[in-house]
Amino acid sequence: MNKNCSNIMALAPSTSNKRETVCIFGTGDFGRALGHKMIQSGYPVVYGSRSTQISSLIPKDAELLSHAEAAQKAAIIIIAIQRHHYNFLIPLAEILHGKVLVDISNNLKLNQYPESNAEYLAQLLPGSRVVKAFNTVSAWALQSGTLDASRQVFVCGDDVEAKQMVMNIVRALGLTPLDKGSLLAAQEIENYPLQLFPMWKFPIFLSLGLTAFFFFYCLALDVIYTYIYEKKNFSFFIAITIPNRVCPVVALILLALVYLPGIFAAIIQLYRGTKYRRFPDWLDKWMLCRKQLGLIALAFASLHVVFTLVTPMRAFVSWRTSKGIISQALNNKTEPLNNTNAWISDCYLALGILGFFLFVLLGITSLPSVSNNVNWREFRFVQSKLGYLALILCTAHTLVYGGKWFLSPSAYKWYLPNIYMLSLVIPCAVLVVKFVLIFPCVDKPLTQIRQGWERNPKHSK
Amino acid sequence: MNKNCSNIMALAPSTSNKRETVCIFGTGDFGRALGHKMIQSGYPVVYGSRSTQISSLIPKDAELLSHAEAAQKAAIIIIAIQRHHYNFLIPLAEILHGKVLVDISNNLKLNQYPESNAEYLAQLLPGSRVVKAFNTVSAWALQSGTLDASRQVFVCGDDVEAKQMVMNIVRALGLTPLDKGSLLAAQEIENYPLQLFPMWKFPIFLSLGLTAFFFFYCLALDVIYTYIYEKKNFSFFIAITIPNRVCPVVALILLALVYLPGIFAAIIQLYRGTKYRRFPDWLDKWMLCRKQLGLIALAFASLHVVFTLVTPMRAFVSWRTSKGIISQALNNKTEPLNNTNAWISDCYLALGILGFFLFVLLGITSLPSVSNNVNWREFRFVQSKLGYLALILCTAHTLVYGGKWFLSPSAYKWYLPNIYMLSLVIPCAVLVVKFVLIFPCVDKPLTQIRQGWERNPKHSK
Amino acid sequence: MNKNCSNIMALAPSTSNKRETVCIFGTGDFGRALGHKMIQSGYPVVYGSRSTQISSLIPKDAELLSHAEAAQKAAIIIIAIQRHHYNFLIPLAEILHGKVLVDISNNLKLNQYPESNAEYLAQLLPGSRVVKAFNTVSAWALQSGTLDASRQVFVCGDDVEAKQMVMNIVRALGLTPLDKGSLLAAQEIENYPLQLFPMWKFPIFLSLGLTAFFFFYCLALDVIYTYIYEKKNFSFFIAITIPNRVCPVVALILLALVYLPGIFAAIIQLYRGTKYRRFPDWLDKWMLCRKQLGLIALAFASLHVVFTLVTPMRAFVSWRTSKGIISQALNNKTEPLNNTNAWISDCYLALGILGFFLFVLLGITSLPSVSNNVNWREFRFVQSKLGYLALILCTAHTLVYGGKWFLSPSAYKWYLPNIYMLSLVIPCAVLVVKFVLIFPCVDKPLTQIRQGWERNPKHSK
Repeated sequence: MNKNCSNIMALAPSTSNKRETVCIFGTGDFGRALGHKMIQSGYPVVYGSRSTQISSLIPKDAELLSHAEAAQKAAIIIIAIQRHHYNFLIPLAEILHGKVLVDISNNLKLNQYPESNAEYLAQLLPGSRVVKAFNTVSAWALQSGTLDASRQVFVCGDDVEAKQMVMNIVRALGLTPLDKGSLLAAQEIENYPLQLFPMWKFPIFLSLGLTAFFFFYCLALDVIYTYIYEKKNFSFFIAITIPNRVCPVVALILLALVYLPGIFAAIIQLYRGTKYRRFPDWLDKWMLCRKQLGLIALAFASLHVVFTLVTPMRAFVSWRTSKGIISQALNNKTEPLNNTNAWISDCYLALGILGFFLFVLLGITSLPSVSNNVNWREFRFVQSKLGYLALILCTAHTLVYGGKWFLSPSAYKWYLPNIYMLSLVIPCAVLVVKFVLIFPCVDKPLTQIRQGWERNPKHSK
Repeated sequence: MNKNCSNIMALAPSTSNKRETVCIFGTGDFGRALGHKMIQSGYPVVYGSRSTQISSLIPKDAELLSHAEAAQKAAIIIIAIQRHHYNFLIPLAEILHGKVLVDISNNLKLNQYPESNAEYLAQLLPGSRVVKAFNTVSAWALQSGTLDASRQVFVCGDDVEAKQMVMNIVRALGLTPLDKGSLLAAQEIENYPLQLFPMWKFPIFLSLGLTAFFFFYCLALDVIYTYIYEKKNFSFFIAITIPNRVCPVVALILLALVYLPGIFAAIIQLYRGTKYRRFPDWLDKWMLCRKQLGLIALAFASLHVVFTLVTPMRAFVSWRTSKGIISQALNNKTEPLNNTNAWISDCYLALGILGFFLFVLLGITSLPSVSNNVNWREFRFVQSKLGYLALILCTAHTLVYGGKWFLSPSAYKWYLPNIYMLSLVIPCAVLVVKFVLIFPCVDKPLTQIRQGWERNPKHSK
Repeated sequence: MNKNCSNIMALAPSTSNKRETVCIFGTGDFGRALGHKMIQSGYPVVYGSRSTQISSLIPKDAELLSHAEAAQKAAIIIIAIQRHHYNFLIPLAEILHGKVLVDISNNLKLNQYPESNAEYLAQLLPGSRVVKAFNTVSAWALQSGTLDASRQVFVCGDDVEAKQMVMNIVRALGLTPLDKGSLLAAQEIENYPLQLFPMWKFPIFLSLGLTAFFFFYCLALDVIYTYIYEKKNFSFFIAITIPNRVCPVVALILLALVYLPGIFAAIIQLYRGTKYRRFPDWLDKWMLCRKQLGLIALAFASLHVVFTLVTPMRAFVSWRTSKGIISQALNNKTEPLNNTNAWISDCYLALGILGFFLFVLLGITSLPSVSNNVNWREFRFVQSKLGYLALILCTAHTLVYGGKWFLSPSAYKWYLPNIYMLSLVIPCAVLVVKFVLIFPCVDKPLTQIRQGWERNPKHSK
């Protein structure tokens, strides 16, 4: 039908008449913004409203009619009214029969109603063809034309042809339709615009908590202790020195926390002897936010790298270097090259660089467009092989750098361990258990379990 | 039909015969390249041409027939001829009735004709099913097999089945079809390959202009002034010192220019009391290239970071450092640590690092694959909250770094202000006005206006 | 049918009953994992099996029936059995007539069978509607719910409606279906999960080979030679100094190797006088892995940048700097600024920074989501214009840095040239030949050939 229509129209002399009329029920903000945009894109727009006197609110070139009259003029009707007014549509059921109704409504809360608004509309008007669309677009963005953000419009509906008609309108407005399947997907689509980084919340709070803890730990040991016992004012350490101690520690701990749930999962599966039972909820949730944990760890690691690289530009460091050189010059002696020091310094720098390099590689492969272009086998290779290698390199970097502190009494100010030691606990534990898990006598049964083998098949029933 | 066909064929013993024959009208470069590729992909190809003697031009395994004979052999006909020859197809209208005609033509200029080539073809042959495709692929890329670039082929057409048939061929050639809707999209698809970064032109020229201006400003003040009045030859400043002054200044100004149009828009809306009137054209265009301005600002900021980090490796800096230390050593004294200097140096470094970190984060979220995965609310949070935070941090970084120059007379060589001062004008203005706009007494009416409220509803009519 | 069904169901009071029943043949690992996931998503699942006694293996809420009984209960049957057991389905042909059969099988080797498993299934049961899907998803990922990797499910099949039904299930499981066209695509889809970075193998082995060669070359000249003839133990050079010599050399050679095949292609085309003959196989393969070569070159260049930036933090470098300053101080003299040195040092740093900047820009544009958003003309501009500029800048960076070594006899330890010289051979050759190719007298015929002109048209037959 749609096809024939447009073929006939293509022959007609007037090209401005090519788009079919669209009806909009409701003259609220979104209805008006959408109408404006459609008129700009060449669609004749007719508004349906209870009162036909409020024409000042609708766009200039649009028509304003009663609901029934407006609905008769168009094959597609956009329902720009709120869910609790939907039942006023029931008397119009006959006119709306066979028409495409586009539900664009959003809720104020996640899962506010038992069924989605679009499914509710389809239940009220079983003869109409309901399509969910446009709810992920902001009225303000439509109005101002500044669609910098996602141009994706999620579309779902049970009628394929109706969906095609709506997707054509979406494309004509310069947006990208994305078919999300049948109307069952409407609930998810309605929840989508209400989210604010749901997967990121726990990782961000965890990392902020760790940052705060280690910041005050360092503040106490490096600034306050030094001020009290050595009478030196190193308060400017707050700007760079302390952040550059906290960042690597938090990055290393978060990176280890990415691999810890995998270790727990393996142990639970070995203990249970089956993979067909669900993990505890906390473990499930933890596993689902591993990517976010890893990316935040990468952010902290990047900050650590830049904080470290600016070291030579700091006034304090220049002063310390000068002081060292001048005291040697004044004492008329030149210290020989300490080969061990040169080895340690170069080693931890090289280990850190390689670890960070792998870490960035992991970050790049977790970009959606890159991870969509690798298959499961490649993804596993990168995320688990290269990921563990990055963890090993970063742990070794910390061990070589902080190794000398373990035996030094000056590292235990106020009987508290240096934060390098704290940072190494989880990474070392993860690496040790992982090392045990790759022994053949442990790895073989685990692989069998993951391929579907069960120790006590009855349990799974 | 297509389905039955292939099912029957699947039972046939010869698997090489599975693809349906494709006809190509025209033996020009693109027709030949496409034919080559189709034969490689297993399609029998038949060429339609006025003269059947020029068989040397077509691929080896293809057949060459007259137009009418060739068209009868295939359900899909690729029209690889130029638009001004399309009318020779009119006599063939009967044979082409019901066939799928693929328009692959491109124009030489944007919007060269009132209607797109594909729509023109559909008007000439109303009985055929016209599909626009393949025009975004280069003949050279098809021929050499080096499709490193986009493998996307935009497809549009009014007949869904015809579109499916063409999209199957596109997939068989190793390309990715992208459905752009009805034939009305053909104009846009035909304009697409003619563009060369249209959104980037203004931002790039603006930034090049700013760069040139500040480069010569610095050259005058830092090299020429020093040479004339201090008799020192610092010409090598051209390589690193001056670029490292120009880059941060341009980056900061461009970043402020990203947020300036939003400020203007708010003021205009407050003044007009409605959001339902279009912004002036210059503001619309400015708002549409904010992303590009921001990314260029990020590029300049990145250059500034690397130029700064290589500082200790410069021969001039090593020499200056040595000179300072040696003069202290020869005078037999050690300067004590200047705590204020240490604070200022660490502060501006830390502010710069954090500002740059947020800036990179903004850059990552503007990658298409990332911005497609965030909803409108998340995008607004990142781009406006974090964006302003980045602007504040970068402005503070510049203020702390350049603050001491404001009162120093040496900063006003030739009575001209230092470029730090020039760079701070726009960012500070933006931040001050934004600060005013978030006061409740200003923010509340603005929010109402953006939600559709109008001060003088009559004006909107 | 599907549509009517769901409309009727939408009116029914129980919403939990909305999804249609899915049948799974086979109780192996993947069959069970998929069944679990479908039950979680609200699908009633019925298993078909030879023995109906092994109910302990299937998910708790699933039904277990004989193959024939199970098949009658559902419109969609997932064939979770291995290809060599497919012929047991032949007796069921009548029951399976018109049903949607989903082939989820994978092979153990690339192209193990002459035809794909899905096509084989379609040949065995010509009355059924076969759809290939789910083979790219891992059973382990489905089971554990940790679908961090690609959520894409490739779907292909000759029946559009059947494909839609399967794609709706895919979406309901939280995965993203990707239509790959007709069943002819099944072979490719079955090969996909078996690949492990196929395009990356040659570039990675090449770069590892080059790295190993240059590492031992440097080790011999910088550590062993110094130890033997100068009695100095510089073994710690292994950690940073030598990697930082090898990385830029490998990066520059790989970058030149990205542009070398284009040069060869131009010469071959000029010699042959036509573009309509295939390149030799080695050149074709080389051209196809240019992107990978370039990205590995970028990785080495990035390592070089970070290795260089940590220089001032190395114990060896601090010691060397101190020694130089102290010896000046003890000799009571201050060396004046060497203007030539300042110029050279600033120049090669600036050239390197700009070259690396362009290199990173090239890397960003090769991200799939970015390159999908540029057209062919823009891609060519970036990859060939900016790419050559990056190569010129990086070659100039190396020339300015290593220039002084060419005439110094100390650069020829053991009569071997310094690696800077080795690294410059290929880049300089590429740039010189490219410079010849852009002369009008060479460029004009080449452009004509690339536009389809042939010197000896007979040859192309």
